[in-house]
Amino acid sequence: MSPPIPRLATVSEIRDALAPVHRRGASVGLVPTMGALHEGHLSLIRAARETNDVVVVSIFVNPTQFGPNEDLERYPRDVEGDSRKCAETGADLIFSPSVEEMYPGPHSTWVEVEGLTAGLCGRSRPGHFRGVCTVLAKLFNICRPDRAYFGEKDAQQLAVVTRMVRNLDFPVQIVPCPTVREPDGLAMSSRNARLTPEERAQAPTLYRSLRAAQERIRAGERDAAALEEIIRSVLTEAPLAEIDYVEIVRADDLSPVAILTGDCLMAVAVKFGGTRLIDNLRVSA
Amino acid sequence: MSPPIPRLATVSEIRDALAPVHRRGASVGLVPTMGALHEGHLSLIRAARETNDVVVVSIFVNPTQFGPNEDLERYPRDVEGDSRKCAETGADLIFSPSVEEMYPGPHSTWVEVEGLTAGLCGRSRPGHFRGVCTVLAKLFNICRPDRAYFGEKDAQQLAVVTRMVRNLDFPVQIVPCPTVREPDGLAMSSRNARLTPEERAQAPTLYRSLRAAQERIRAGERDAAALEEIIRSVLTEAPLAEIDYVEIVRADDLSPVAILTGDCLMAVAVKFGGTRLIDNLRVSA
Repeated sequence: MSPPIPRLATVSEIRDALAPVHRRGASVGLVPTMGALHEGHLSLIRAARETNDVVVVSIFVNPTQFGPNEDLERYPRDVEGDSRKCAETGADLIFSPSVEEMYPGPHSTWVEVEGLTAGLCGRSRPGHFRGVCTVLAKLFNICRPDRAYFGEKDAQQLAVVTRMVRNLDFPVQIVPCPTVREPDGLAMSSRNARLTPEERAQAPTLYRSLRAAQERIRAGERDAAALEEIIRSVLTEAPLAEIDYVEIVRADDLSPVAILTGDCLMAVAVKFGGTRLIDNLRVSA
Repeated sequence: MSPPIPRLATVSEIRDALAPVHRRGASVGLVPTMGALHEGHLSLIRAARETNDVVVVSIFVNPTQFGPNEDLERYPRDVEGDSRKCAETGADLIFSPSVEEMYPGPHSTWVEVEGLTAGLCGRSRPGHFRGVCTVLAKLFNICRPDRAYFGEKDAQQLAVVTRMVRNLDFPVQIVPCPTVREPDGLAMSSRNARLTPEERAQAPTLYRSLRAAQERIRAGERDAAALEEIIRSVLTEAPLAEIDYVEIVRADDLSPVAILTGDCLMAVAVKFGGTRLIDNLRVSA
């Protein structure tokens, strides 16, 4: 068992802890999370550990990225388990502020990435990426990391954050990390814990549907509508799943494609009851 | 005559120039300007010089803070004169990027401060403060200053930037500096250079109108509508001036007040032909 690592709850504590690190020119890797850590998060921490002198994991269920009818209250939380996992995976510091600490006094400043956020999850979750970008801008300013680590499972988030960092000249490198999957193909997600046994049994259908389309691309199919139809038809094999979207977009600007060329992203979102799951597969045509 | 100081035109040049400064823990003061420097700007540079190891003046006429019918093209520019003044006032570095350098590739990220930007100049200049906040976020991320200097003449900008920095946790201290005035009371502004002799003769009326209201406050008047009426009536003595707004607001959140209590701001904006001038006076009731 690894010894516990510092868990800091205030902006001034984490700033004070990182000040000497920055002063001596050591590199800082940030893994921003909402907690309920799974193997996907731990792979980000391991990647950060490999490249940086100091690894900070932030754990903050950010209310501004949840819509009024979303699962903010029900979002899984396990700070003790998370702390243990962070220590075991080699993180150095945890930053786990309260909502009051992150949003004190009147908050009226928002960072918004237009265009990229119009489709996919942005369409069904208005305001979601505004909340994500705003809290990440705050975390970048508080921790001043050299690198920040994001999973490719949240493909739109990754594209949006990359654009934000480039547009606003944040001096941080965004490091994408491959999606980590369960043995049956289900992409790791903190929300998986909220699936019923029946839903969990059907959940691997997301990845299966994307793989089916990938097979057809390998066989020569380039028509996005035909591929989306294949994905949809495989998804019907999960009767508890309600499709939110099935989209094929360009990997760089997330604009819809009709005929696949270059790097594309096949992305799906479905709802199992109150639990929304997403997955995607990158394909080169 | 002071020797010239480096004038850097690219993000990587200014970053490279400041990297050793940050590494040795020296403090950086940033004076963000749009050039056409006057005594107001120079007072900011002098204030920065007093407190910081390294003083950077940015000169960038930021297109994203101009509306489609505003004076972007006609905005005065004098890079050679500005460079001389920066050197004479003790600045160390000038950052004067091109528009292409500051907005390369697709730009779709915006920093917006809601609420504070609804009234005053924000009402007549939609999108203005979004452009201001976005370019300042970029400049803060590029230069990583410890302190940034702003004139109180742009009172709303000062309030908006202060809020942005607090809300997004930018590790920079915003330092307000008093408005610098011509001997006849006219607040210094790069736009003053564009006034005709007749307009210039009438321009001190802005400050006179505010002073008249201040006198009435000293005499006991607390009714905002009555004070605004006084300001408007003095402004009619400048027949070439077309009033944009006359407002009395709370100094902290810029919300309109009916009866003066605490710290308030009396603010005016008028147009002389195509030239828009603003001024304000802070009063404690």
